Amino acid sequence: MDKMTKEHLTSLLINGTSEQIQEAIDDIHPADILDVLQDHHSQLNNILSKLPNDIIADVIEEEEDEDEQYEILKTFLKDRQSAILDEMSDDELADLIGELDDPEERADVLSKLDIEDKTHIESLLKYDPSTAGGIMTTEFISVKANNTVLKTLEYLQTQVEEDTTYYLYVLDKEKVLKGVISLRDIVSSPFDTPIMDIVNPNVKTVDVNMDQEEVAKKFMKYGFYMMPVVDSEYRMLGVIEIDDVMDVMEEETTEDINLMAGMSGEERVDSTVLESAKSRIPWLIVNLFTAVMAAAVVANFESTIAKVVSLSSVMSIVTGMGGNAGTQSLTILCRGLSLGEVDKDNAFQIFCKEITVGLLSGIVIGIIVAIGAWWFASNPWFGLVAGLAMILNMLAANIAGYLVPVILKRLNIDPALASGVFVTTVTDCMGFFFFLGLATLFLPLLI
Amino acid sequence: MDKMTKEHLTSLLINGTSEQIQEAIDDIHPADILDVLQDHHSQLNNILSKLPNDIIADVIEEEEDEDEQYEILKTFLKDRQSAILDEMSDDELADLIGELDDPEERADVLSKLDIEDKTHIESLLKYDPSTAGGIMTTEFISVKANNTVLKTLEYLQTQVEEDTTYYLYVLDKEKVLKGVISLRDIVSSPFDTPIMDIVNPNVKTVDVNMDQEEVAKKFMKYGFYMMPVVDSEYRMLGVIEIDDVMDVMEEETTEDINLMAGMSGEERVDSTVLESAKSRIPWLIVNLFTAVMAAAVVANFESTIAKVVSLSSVMSIVTGMGGNAGTQSLTILCRGLSLGEVDKDNAFQIFCKEITVGLLSGIVIGIIVAIGAWWFASNPWFGLVAGLAMILNMLAANIAGYLVPVILKRLNIDPALASGVFVTTVTDCMGFFFFLGLATLFLPLLI
Repeated sequence: MDKMTKEHLTSLLINGTSEQIQEAIDDIHPADILDVLQDHHSQLNNILSKLPNDIIADVIEEEEDEDEQYEILKTFLKDRQSAILDEMSDDELADLIGELDDPEERADVLSKLDIEDKTHIESLLKYDPSTAGGIMTTEFISVKANNTVLKTLEYLQTQVEEDTTYYLYVLDKEKVLKGVISLRDIVSSPFDTPIMDIVNPNVKTVDVNMDQEEVAKKFMKYGFYMMPVVDSEYRMLGVIEIDDVMDVMEEETTEDINLMAGMSGEERVDSTVLESAKSRIPWLIVNLFTAVMAAAVVANFESTIAKVVSLSSVMSIVTGMGGNAGTQSLTILCRGLSLGEVDKDNAFQIFCKEITVGLLSGIVIGIIVAIGAWWFASNPWFGLVAGLAMILNMLAANIAGYLVPVILKRLNIDPALASGVFVTTVTDCMGFFFFLGLATLFLPLLI
Repeated sequence: MDKMTKEHLTSLLINGTSEQIQEAIDDIHPADILDVLQDHHSQLNNILSKLPNDIIADVIEEEEDEDEQYEILKTFLKDRQSAILDEMSDDELADLIGELDDPEERADVLSKLDIEDKTHIESLLKYDPSTAGGIMTTEFISVKANNTVLKTLEYLQTQVEEDTTYYLYVLDKEKVLKGVISLRDIVSSPFDTPIMDIVNPNVKTVDVNMDQEEVAKKFMKYGFYMMPVVDSEYRMLGVIEIDDVMDVMEEETTEDINLMAGMSGEERVDSTVLESAKSRIPWLIVNLFTAVMAAAVVANFESTIAKVVSLSSVMSIVTGMGGNAGTQSLTILCRGLSLGEVDKDNAFQIFCKEITVGLLSGIVIGIIVAIGAWWFASNPWFGLVAGLAMILNMLAANIAGYLVPVILKRLNIDPALASGVFVTTVTDCMGFFFFLGLATLFLPLLI
């Protein structure tokens, strides 16, 4: 896209002949073709009909939504579909088939694969899609340790596979992984170097059942472009590439952010009304119960409020500010937990910090609130009650902001899961209780 | 770490001799050494003293906190420090120097570099750290287009640089980037293939001033492991690797999450009390103003509350639920905006969806609240007022949850920046206004 403008590409794809497009195809990235298809949906059939099969396969792989992938595929006749599917990599095929909502569509795609691909895909589909097995590809190149660099290069030249990867793997007869060689070492070593000398036997591997979030953390830690996937016997099953890991990171982060806000992990900005309603309303109902709890606290103090009505306007400041402070603590903790930055060694230290920060901000905000409330009610005792309640609630907010995600994590529940609901329940109930409770104690001085 | 357990490595590093460690060093990943150093801080000097310079450089590069990097470096005498710095890559050196808080420390490290490195680093330090120039490395290999594959391989064998990358670049005399060759193509092409035939002239590049968030999006879109950085004349200045991009993604996401919760983008779970207080208290004070606005709305209706005190307990349900619904919309919008999933074509559609979802959940929650409030006050009119206010506020919440981030984005302000504060201000003020306003209208029926 840097040398060919988007306008140029769009016009070539829409108005060009099949031959003109063929001539320029090496200069076009499939992600850019997908962009044009998405912007000019009415031209879908026209453009696709002029592209060769391997490019269509690439374009389908660029599309992230499996239902859209299927839609592109369906524009072709049955035989052509098989030819296109044949060009796709097996991890992408497995994702496509695994994620299609309609079982008939799934069977339809499977039926169009050749037998070898079908066996591969069916074995990949056995793995949970959110594990290493679910994101790996089984396409990798293994070489013999007793060759030289020259022999290996000659061997690689015979491999017509498009997808030579940046690492070669040494396996024994039982397919047990013995070592890894980087292409960097192949190209920078003299031709007569024995492969044995440049093999790294201490390979970092990923277990096939490892959760994809853990896989992403391992990639982040070691900075590899690719890691081999093995079973419990250390037999090599496939490889995971870093660009798939980036997609995982994005997906897991979105999930965390959604859960914290009380939504399903799957909702996206382009979800339908029905999907969004299903994602949000259940949590709103849970929220409603907690809101009723807070209201019940207020109801208990109705006689106090009846005597000093101005309490009713100030009380929402105490709970609202507590909610904000609690959300701050909670957000920091959830993110820290999800990045693996909280462990036994620093947990207590973080807890103490949250308490101190809660107390500090409680004092700052409490003093401002106290002065404001004193002025508002023209009564210093009113100010004292509001200020004290504010300090206590900020402290409670930060304690809850720490404890809720940490306890959820300890219970093996995703700490982001509706932590927000629990924390604001604490800050609302406690806020009303502190403020109206203190007001009741000091009642004679407030009237 | 897969073949050598953590216990084994720890004991080797702490108790082994320099020679024993040297023998095993090829099997040890520097990230694992850093883990041991962090877990056994008292052994820092002991362990470091037994490691060779290049490994120490690698360990320093694995450490993400620049002040900790400096601490490791400082354990050595001056000459040894220079030797270690000499082994570090220039982008890591530039980060180390650029991020040190103390100017004296910065000058100290700079003074220990050799002249060539110093010139390099000083030119890198000129770039804004959050742009492509700030995250690139200037170490890359350029080759001639008129050689064959064999000649190129022989040339690469003479390059003793450790960091042969997976791509080679073809530049003209003015250093203008003409093409890129992947090592995959080098190793899979016959020896007599002219490099010209396997060069890809349509290189995707990154402008040196491009914001790092845009760089990350470009990597995500095209799935490359590495991209060249060029100036406005298309002269090649350096390369960016995907593992640096992963760090950028993590950092930018944390920043967004923090901003949404009303904190500075820099706060982390291990920040000090002072850093946290500085990050949070300013936003709490902003929040306080908005809480006072909501309280002022309530104060306007004090005469109504004085007549029907039970309004004071139900009103927080209306505002609280609105706040939750608004946060849901806001969260979905902010994430969508930051991933670039919202554009002109779908913006109106998303707006309509948010309104529909707001109305739908308003009706569901409104009916439950209406029935509950009717029962609570033993008055159907009380239920009607609560239910209607709930529906109106949920609608307002979803409209605000959409508009606030979209407007901030239009104003070129980060949409995450305190969107939460604005949205809850709307839901609090509107919630109180709808509920108490309706109650005032229906007052004769409520008493």
